[in-house]
Amino acid sequence: MKIGAAVLVALLPLAAQADEGMWTYDNFPKAALKEKHGVTVDDAWLEHLRLSSVRLVEGCSGSFVSAAGLVLTNFHCAQTCLAQISTAQKDYQTEGFLADTLADEVTCPGFEINQLLSIADVSARVEKAVAGRPARERAEAEKAEDLRIEAECASSADVRCDVVSLYGGARHHLYKYRRFQDVRLAFAPEMAIAFFGGDPDNFNFPRYNLDMALLRVWNGAQPLATEHYLRWSATGPKENELTFISGHPGSTRRQFTVAQLEQQRDVQIPDSLLRQAEQRGLLTEYQRRGVEPQRHSMDILLTIENSYKANLGAHHALADPAFFAGLVAREKKLRRLVGAKPESQKAYGGAWDGITAALTRLRGFRDEYYQIEAGRAFSSELFGIARLLVRAAAERPKPVAERLREFSESAIPGLEQAVANPAPLYDELEIALLTFSLTKLREVLGTDHPVVKKVLGAESPEDLASRAVKGTKLHDVAVRKALWEGGPKAIEASDDPMIVLARRVDPDARAVRRRLEDEYEGPLEVETQKLARARFAAYGASTYPDATFTLRLNYGTVRGWTEPGGQVIPPFTDLRGTYDRATGRAPYALPGSWLGRKADLDLDTPFNFASDNDSVGGNSGSPIVNIQGELVGLAFDGNIHSLGGDFGFDEAKNRAVSIHSAAILEAMDKVYRAHRLLKEIRPPR
Amino acid sequence: MKIGAAVLVALLPLAAQADEGMWTYDNFPKAALKEKHGVTVDDAWLEHLRLSSVRLVEGCSGSFVSAAGLVLTNFHCAQTCLAQISTAQKDYQTEGFLADTLADEVTCPGFEINQLLSIADVSARVEKAVAGRPARERAEAEKAEDLRIEAECASSADVRCDVVSLYGGARHHLYKYRRFQDVRLAFAPEMAIAFFGGDPDNFNFPRYNLDMALLRVWNGAQPLATEHYLRWSATGPKENELTFISGHPGSTRRQFTVAQLEQQRDVQIPDSLLRQAEQRGLLTEYQRRGVEPQRHSMDILLTIENSYKANLGAHHALADPAFFAGLVAREKKLRRLVGAKPESQKAYGGAWDGITAALTRLRGFRDEYYQIEAGRAFSSELFGIARLLVRAAAERPKPVAERLREFSESAIPGLEQAVANPAPLYDELEIALLTFSLTKLREVLGTDHPVVKKVLGAESPEDLASRAVKGTKLHDVAVRKALWEGGPKAIEASDDPMIVLARRVDPDARAVRRRLEDEYEGPLEVETQKLARARFAAYGASTYPDATFTLRLNYGTVRGWTEPGGQVIPPFTDLRGTYDRATGRAPYALPGSWLGRKADLDLDTPFNFASDNDSVGGNSGSPIVNIQGELVGLAFDGNIHSLGGDFGFDEAKNRAVSIHSAAILEAMDKVYRAHRLLKEIRPPR
Repeated sequence: MKIGAAVLVALLPLAAQADEGMWTYDNFPKAALKEKHGVTVDDAWLEHLRLSSVRLVEGCSGSFVSAAGLVLTNFHCAQTCLAQISTAQKDYQTEGFLADTLADEVTCPGFEINQLLSIADVSARVEKAVAGRPARERAEAEKAEDLRIEAECASSADVRCDVVSLYGGARHHLYKYRRFQDVRLAFAPEMAIAFFGGDPDNFNFPRYNLDMALLRVWNGAQPLATEHYLRWSATGPKENELTFISGHPGSTRRQFTVAQLEQQRDVQIPDSLLRQAEQRGLLTEYQRRGVEPQRHSMDILLTIENSYKANLGAHHALADPAFFAGLVAREKKLRRLVGAKPESQKAYGGAWDGITAALTRLRGFRDEYYQIEAGRAFSSELFGIARLLVRAAAERPKPVAERLREFSESAIPGLEQAVANPAPLYDELEIALLTFSLTKLREVLGTDHPVVKKVLGAESPEDLASRAVKGTKLHDVAVRKALWEGGPKAIEASDDPMIVLARRVDPDARAVRRRLEDEYEGPLEVETQKLARARFAAYGASTYPDATFTLRLNYGTVRGWTEPGGQVIPPFTDLRGTYDRATGRAPYALPGSWLGRKADLDLDTPFNFASDNDSVGGNSGSPIVNIQGELVGLAFDGNIHSLGGDFGFDEAKNRAVSIHSAAILEAMDKVYRAHRLLKEIRPPR
Repeated sequence: MKIGAAVLVALLPLAAQADEGMWTYDNFPKAALKEKHGVTVDDAWLEHLRLSSVRLVEGCSGSFVSAAGLVLTNFHCAQTCLAQISTAQKDYQTEGFLADTLADEVTCPGFEINQLLSIADVSARVEKAVAGRPARERAEAEKAEDLRIEAECASSADVRCDVVSLYGGARHHLYKYRRFQDVRLAFAPEMAIAFFGGDPDNFNFPRYNLDMALLRVWNGAQPLATEHYLRWSATGPKENELTFISGHPGSTRRQFTVAQLEQQRDVQIPDSLLRQAEQRGLLTEYQRRGVEPQRHSMDILLTIENSYKANLGAHHALADPAFFAGLVAREKKLRRLVGAKPESQKAYGGAWDGITAALTRLRGFRDEYYQIEAGRAFSSELFGIARLLVRAAAERPKPVAERLREFSESAIPGLEQAVANPAPLYDELEIALLTFSLTKLREVLGTDHPVVKKVLGAESPEDLASRAVKGTKLHDVAVRKALWEGGPKAIEASDDPMIVLARRVDPDARAVRRRLEDEYEGPLEVETQKLARARFAAYGASTYPDATFTLRLNYGTVRGWTEPGGQVIPPFTDLRGTYDRATGRAPYALPGSWLGRKADLDLDTPFNFASDNDSVGGNSGSPIVNIQGELVGLAFDGNIHSLGGDFGFDEAKNRAVSIHSAAILEAMDKVYRAHRLLKEIRPPR
């Protein structure tokens, strides 16, 4: 009962209440902070934190922590890099990595880091472009205007400009970034301590993880000179201390209507979970094929397990009658407020039914969209490259406003980086995953679906996967570049089997994408805009938009929580607890470095801590700072209750989980002897 | 819109409407049949069909089709037998099996077949035994009385007596069976034609499957002389012909309240699906370990895939807003009827809230129950044997009424058969599945749960699985029999690692089972009885109970259906279509026998057909007969719309799928030359 009641209270307004809120930097609630916590932050404070914060475009956050471009983020955010630089002789995921000298820092292929320079409101311009159009043409017109704005803004390859749709499309802001594409790895510990406790302890607390890595941004032949970077706190945080997390929460669904939440609970999340569960089973067993297959598939298996657990937590939240009742009550309240005035009822009252109608239309082609356009049918990096090349050939010659969204001027440098990415691709793994996904294509759409027939013909999924992976030349970066440069003629002339496959399904993929935009996305935005305006009218402008993998700032305090059964969870763990928890068997086996240097460590050093900062996936790697703007920790996870945070913030139990800044220093010093890097980041004694 | 409306009409009453209904033989609606179809069946007709019908206790149905004990059922119902008699040299699942002589028919280890002799109403006795007890003690008291009744009835090992709870506990009937434990295999075709189209075509139609097998019941040294068996129709069924399916539908949830349906949709079904999806991924990849691992795991993989697809269809039905609205309307109607009279409101009106309260309590220990007692943590045949032995030692010395339900006198012969079952168990597969399930135990209950700690200690799941499987002697039937006979002393003295494991968790498993009975099952039955009585009062006695894997009879007609998109699906396929669909690649590769003898076949022979008989899982292998009581087909599946049949019968689209009787004869004659068996079953020309 207590759960339900607590949730109800916390969920009712979407606006600031307690320490809920993922605030955009242009709308940070300084007054609320002052009122609640008695402290003030000024614009310079905000600007420094914003420019010290970075985004890793693969899906993480980070921060500059030295004057020479050093970026602190999570091990699991750098893991793709560790996997890509590993070889049969040296597995850096397992063994960790430490560059003895600057010259030893190795390039992370495909990594891009963004620093947010400015935010501008372009809502009026976007709205003008779509004004008067029917809902079905809206998505296309809006996209065209977004692409024009981005092209005007992106003056050079190292500037990235994204028009971001906020509040379900009620606001459009232009986010301008400095783009860095030369990113190198300086340090990462062994996975056994970075991810100590593995999947069983993931999203749980108490926790004992050194989930950290240090990257470095280079600028030409030099490390980037960073004017803005975070100084290290001398002590780290204490219980009840005020903390701020500055990072990039990926997506939330807090403004969803009940019909949308039901669709999430009944269709969207189960569908994702089932796919992930099957992939997980497959890859877990695949790992037994041998040492090399194990190494090749480790990164993707961990990614799937993490996403599976997050989705499962989100589903559990929605499947909890008390939690869901809180979300229903939130909608009822807004409906009542809207219905109370005839003019607001007229302007906004139809939004709920409009959204439900869009969801009903979506049912007709949702599976086709996910299979054919969203790429579920083709789980293959090589296919992804083939599709990119096929589409780039068609899109790049077009005027910018007529292109597909992902071929904006601002996106081209990233695409070129992907084409030129020399990271190895593994045929055996590619075949296994493509066989799986083609089997699913046939299972979901049925053997007799025209696209299934077109793709498979008389081949089995395994036949086709094997033929396309073994026959393609797209492993070769030179071949890819030639197709990128060669344009439509080169693509037309290619008989590369992966290119042929991507070419063959492209018309169907584009058709179902267009259908999604016209029948679902465009009409949906019209209705969600109404709801956003209804919320502004009801609750004022002090609200924050759902997360969009753009920079947000929130505040909270270091504290534990009480479980529904009454168990009190304290906010800190320490290094000693790590040794107590170790069994010697994975995932509770400590690496040799930790076993060998136990005596050197101050075991009282706090290791991980919980705080009620409002964070979700995408916040991984975010700095957590104190009121002085000093780094006191590195966010890497949330507790199990944080997984309902997609839909609403339960202040009583939702906790972010971070590494204590002192533990990072202690481990780098005593366990890893990473003194070159420590000298860069360590606070003056 | 059409779907929703159609469903609504079909779902409103649970009583007979159209051809819905899985009728118990003691309450078959002769009058409704006469009214709707203009035909009459008498008691002799019913008795003959009942005594010709059989149950395969592993979870299927079948029928006697000769005077010498020949039983017709599905290939997939005999597949466990095919797997168990196969060896590295000879894989009967793939190659099929045909006994040239009676002496060549091979024993199916562990198979038990039941023939229903009589049904008696023991409701009054059971109700008296529980009268006046609090809800929490009810399950225990009822079980005790059931066990007494069964013990009195089961006069010898070849008589099996089950007290069956019907209408959610509002009726208790004693089902008395003749039990046959010497079951042999006479014929099965190759899996490639029995399951042509594989998982993609499963639950779909049009269909082209020879999903049949012939078993034989032996009685001592002779084939059983069967007085009652089904004669073969000379022609098989025509479109719109009246047909009857007599079989054992496993379970349905048509009397569930909306709260129970929500729990199914949000918790129960997703939870099962996710586990099955992961097992499926694991086993699909496990199959690549080699030819032998592939053979060992085929049966279990197909079982999981079938169950997964059935669960997925059930979930899709509940996730369909229109379908669910129909179920909500059904409940609303009953609530209205109950509320209309003060005395019925007083007697029954609290049932819905009572059920919701039971579900809320269940949340507190559901995971523990499924993991520890329901066996999810221990996916191992060897563990199953160990637990059986550990519990048998404790239970068998007790007075019958004090035993666990599954140790009734009536159950002992089946348990002895399981102990003595010489079918091979495969260590490699056992270790893989036990590792998986122990990993899940830790994942679901958490590393720090006391039972997880007790089970794993400092071992990893793989350590423990490997040690227990490799160290146990329970592969040896003699060792098992010694422990079975040795009783508590032998179990206490055993240091067999699997026995030790089963012994160690037994107190926890019993405790959570008791908690389930006391806090959930007992109170739930009190409330569901009220609802059943409310339905009797509202709709009269002409209702049928939810399926309970007991013999049911229903009627319907041979007909296709119209898809929501307008596509008309005709009711028959023919042999020609099989060849048209074949691609030469699994699962669309025909076996050599069918390719080689195509010219011999009459390709116009109807192969599979659809009918609107109301059937669900458990009906596999059921005979489908005409008004003359002649066999016209063999039910083996339902169409995709039948998967919502768990919750309500949609007459417009829900179809059973059967093999046409003529196709069975044609294939046995022309493809398999099974003339010895054909002579037994073929009708006089």
